[in-house]
Amino acid sequence: MELRAGWPSWKDRVFGLLHPDDDDTAAKLLNSFLATLIVANVAAAVMSTVESVQARYVGTFGVFERVSLMVFAVEYAARVWTADVHRGHLQPWAARLRYVVSPLALIDLVALLPLLFGLLSAGDLVALRALRLLRILSLLRLGRYSKTLQLFGRVLRGRAEELFVTVTLVLVLMLSAATLMYLAEREAQPQVYASIPQTMWWAIVTLTTVGYGDMFPQTILGKILGGTIALFGVGLVALPAGLLASGFAEEMGRMREERESEELGLLAQEKAATATWSYCPHCGEKLPAPPSAP
Amino acid sequence: MELRAGWPSWKDRVFGLLHPDDDDTAAKLLNSFLATLIVANVAAAVMSTVESVQARYVGTFGVFERVSLMVFAVEYAARVWTADVHRGHLQPWAARLRYVVSPLALIDLVALLPLLFGLLSAGDLVALRALRLLRILSLLRLGRYSKTLQLFGRVLRGRAEELFVTVTLVLVLMLSAATLMYLAEREAQPQVYASIPQTMWWAIVTLTTVGYGDMFPQTILGKILGGTIALFGVGLVALPAGLLASGFAEEMGRMREERESEELGLLAQEKAATATWSYCPHCGEKLPAPPSAP
Amino acid sequence: MELRAGWPSWKDRVFGLLHPDDDDTAAKLLNSFLATLIVANVAAAVMSTVESVQARYVGTFGVFERVSLMVFAVEYAARVWTADVHRGHLQPWAARLRYVVSPLALIDLVALLPLLFGLLSAGDLVALRALRLLRILSLLRLGRYSKTLQLFGRVLRGRAEELFVTVTLVLVLMLSAATLMYLAEREAQPQVYASIPQTMWWAIVTLTTVGYGDMFPQTILGKILGGTIALFGVGLVALPAGLLASGFAEEMGRMREERESEELGLLAQEKAATATWSYCPHCGEKLPAPPSAP
Amino acid sequence: MELRAGWPSWKDRVFGLLHPDDDDTAAKLLNSFLATLIVANVAAAVMSTVESVQARYVGTFGVFERVSLMVFAVEYAARVWTADVHRGHLQPWAARLRYVVSPLALIDLVALLPLLFGLLSAGDLVALRALRLLRILSLLRLGRYSKTLQLFGRVLRGRAEELFVTVTLVLVLMLSAATLMYLAEREAQPQVYASIPQTMWWAIVTLTTVGYGDMFPQTILGKILGGTIALFGVGLVALPAGLLASGFAEEMGRMREERESEELGLLAQEKAATATWSYCPHCGEKLPAPPSAP
Repeated sequence: MELRAGWPSWKDRVFGLLHPDDDDTAAKLLNSFLATLIVANVAAAVMSTVESVQARYVGTFGVFERVSLMVFAVEYAARVWTADVHRGHLQPWAARLRYVVSPLALIDLVALLPLLFGLLSAGDLVALRALRLLRILSLLRLGRYSKTLQLFGRVLRGRAEELFVTVTLVLVLMLSAATLMYLAEREAQPQVYASIPQTMWWAIVTLTTVGYGDMFPQTILGKILGGTIALFGVGLVALPAGLLASGFAEEMGRMREERESEELGLLAQEKAATATWSYCPHCGEKLPAPPSAP
Repeated sequence: MELRAGWPSWKDRVFGLLHPDDDDTAAKLLNSFLATLIVANVAAAVMSTVESVQARYVGTFGVFERVSLMVFAVEYAARVWTADVHRGHLQPWAARLRYVVSPLALIDLVALLPLLFGLLSAGDLVALRALRLLRILSLLRLGRYSKTLQLFGRVLRGRAEELFVTVTLVLVLMLSAATLMYLAEREAQPQVYASIPQTMWWAIVTLTTVGYGDMFPQTILGKILGGTIALFGVGLVALPAGLLASGFAEEMGRMREERESEELGLLAQEKAATATWSYCPHCGEKLPAPPSAP
Repeated sequence: MELRAGWPSWKDRVFGLLHPDDDDTAAKLLNSFLATLIVANVAAAVMSTVESVQARYVGTFGVFERVSLMVFAVEYAARVWTADVHRGHLQPWAARLRYVVSPLALIDLVALLPLLFGLLSAGDLVALRALRLLRILSLLRLGRYSKTLQLFGRVLRGRAEELFVTVTLVLVLMLSAATLMYLAEREAQPQVYASIPQTMWWAIVTLTTVGYGDMFPQTILGKILGGTIALFGVGLVALPAGLLASGFAEEMGRMREERESEELGLLAQEKAATATWSYCPHCGEKLPAPPSAP
Repeated sequence: MELRAGWPSWKDRVFGLLHPDDDDTAAKLLNSFLATLIVANVAAAVMSTVESVQARYVGTFGVFERVSLMVFAVEYAARVWTADVHRGHLQPWAARLRYVVSPLALIDLVALLPLLFGLLSAGDLVALRALRLLRILSLLRLGRYSKTLQLFGRVLRGRAEELFVTVTLVLVLMLSAATLMYLAEREAQPQVYASIPQTMWWAIVTLTTVGYGDMFPQTILGKILGGTIALFGVGLVALPAGLLASGFAEEMGRMREERESEELGLLAQEKAATATWSYCPHCGEKLPAPPSAP
């Protein structure tokens, strides 16, 4: 990160530590440490639901959780404090507010709740302790993977229309399948195919091809219907996933090409000349473009 | 929608309400209301099959269904009445007939049947009441999603030949698999693998990878056969879905490119110069091209 | 089909009937009739395995099968007789032999076996009667679908190397998975995971995602192993199918482009100038190119 | 392979035998023999876990295994001895060391362990005898398939970033799904949904669509959760496999194009002029480029 003259160097140093460059060893080490701590924390939260493990290590888990929550609280405060460094076009309070309401920051905040309310020491509220598991999402922000994650979001937005239509089609298909199956099987298996919502479970389990085997047609009509629905529905249900995958692959290809062009110095100049905004390399936010060098 | 001078303005106004433009707030509100009513109606139809819910809200469901059926009847009448607005090249009665026999209009009509025959009040004919569920398909007509739906139809037509061949191959494969499996297992499990049609159920459930577990080979020969069939068949059965997905993705890409070209004004002129027909933006029907401006 | 002067017109007429052109109504009718007869025959063969149906219609089935076998025998003879019409570069007997050993003709011959040996009347040799089911493959030869089928064969050949490698990888993966699972589970479930070949059934059922539920790991180690294998193996096992689908889509696109170019008359001339052989439009065989017109 | 003058011809001859050219019949025969021996060996190892087979052929298996292990030991020694033939830029010992630590050579060595330690004769250590199964991986080195295998590795490396992100996303999704499901079902099925790690088994089996049926939600909340997770999760879990498949297809296309260009002699000259290194056709290692011909 280029330091802008005139900013207090302490804040810039902290910001630099949290957003590692390619040649900042200290920042890289800090990020690796935080990543390891997150993974260890999630692993501890997961293992503490195993009774035999929990009975044995309850004290160790408690200490480890409290210590790491402190670390995460400090990290959160540092991120809020330095949130205005790369948002020079905003007032500091506005820059911080924008950071606080960004999705990943909200997840961080929720994952800190157990600390704020002392829930960890209080007792056995499993559901609330599960909040800590959210922390694993923070992993996605660390290092260079945030770029690919932004790309993923871009694909979701870019294909929003197709995804909406195909998902609607899938839901309509599932509802129709469940209705037909309910009509065909409710007399032979009145306990299992008891209503359309209950038959929806069959439709989802069948059309995603999971097929647990807890519900399947037993009449001839039901089998003919179910077979036809499975044969033609399975492809349709896989359509949104296929669209997403092809969109992702396409966008990755475009990104790779752009990177290659940039390396050749062709695109960079063009872009600089025409862009009025750019994506922040640190948070993926749209920022006004800096005045191009003369 | 551009109003054509000379048409009665009331009909045009109704037509405009039913086919919302980008800047017609009233039409947008009406469409949102109709969409919400459809979803609520389908939800009520689905929930009324749950016995405990039905027992409690039978009165509410009855009133709601009758009221919304009235609204849908009025909507249907209005659509038929204004069906000639954008089909200026046809006689009014021909334009209306063409609308009435279009797939979505037929679905609307069928979904109105319960009203016409008073079936709702009459009794417990579940199958006939299920007709109301068809209404959810109307959702697909509303707003801008009709365009993507037309695209879907175009892909289906454009790949018809490949789809036919691969679906035939899949059916042939399934029939062969069922025959071989029937021969291999009918002695070990005479009740389960009782005939080729019954073994078809195994073939479908296996080759779509649903795998309920109600039928599986138990002899060594049957397992070798079944394993080989699964290994090689699963890919072939997924082929039509893959073709559909790739066709869809390709067509979407072409549509996006065209839209971009159109925005640049390149394609629009070319098209206007050569086209002798165009797709109606409201219903996707082929219409004769309007005389191009001099 | 262009008739070549000098050939006996009877043979050419029969050949034309069996290989319908776009404007030969009689040939089209004959082909539709044969297709219907094949489908009806296969349906009868399938339904005759259902005991209740067989008991009732055993006489009807017998007559229908004998009559249609006669028709198919006549068709087979006609195809062999006229096999030299479009293979002018070969001796008649060589042309006929080449036809007789082509895959679809061999299938036809096998499907005629029940007639030759009188097996149908003889008795209950189910396995031999199942041969008639092979006839459904003949459907693929009729009409214009043979072209797409040839395309399918071309894709298989064109991707042979990748398919071989990925299929080998899949088999290696399955063998490794079965070995590891056998080692992990054979003590907990000695009856089920009794040997590596028996555990292969688990590997196939899991990695194709069929998942019947007749075999699954029950130890902790087995579940960790099985979960890891499923997570990473499922994608690899789907690879050959994905390659096939993408190859098919690509080849179809190329074919469509070529057809468009041909319609513009661009490619046709080029081709005619350089080609020394061409694919016969009737059987997909490589034939020496006819001398191009001056 | 072009022999470089100055090298002892015996070593070159052995090297040539192990790395068959297109026109070296002896080398091809040797490779076919080795491939057959590997397959036979693996088949014997697999079949020896079937009790009835093992009881009957224990002597035959023992002799066959010892003999073929000798052959493989000689092959391994020959490969190490000739490892410096195509690594002319390295000291002989460095070339041999590099070969010994390459993945396939390590696998060969591990597969030879049973010979070195006499384990085969010693007893019933099934796990150690399973090492022989590793030998099947050697198949991938033989002949021309090594090229496609290298391609596979290149795709894995080229898409490493996307794969890492999507795999992380999948793991995060699975962990979240398991946590939610554990909270929803642990009271209704305390034995089955006993902890988050145990619920992970459900998440993997569901999201890979295997669906054994040993674990599935039974409460209404659990079914709603499970259905939603299945509907949206299945597509995400299939994403890495889709990326891999599209990457593989793309890379194959590029390879095919390059080969075609090379055949036209266009690319070859360009390459020779600029390349400072090349991939060894025998082992896929990067080697310094030979001085281009004047």
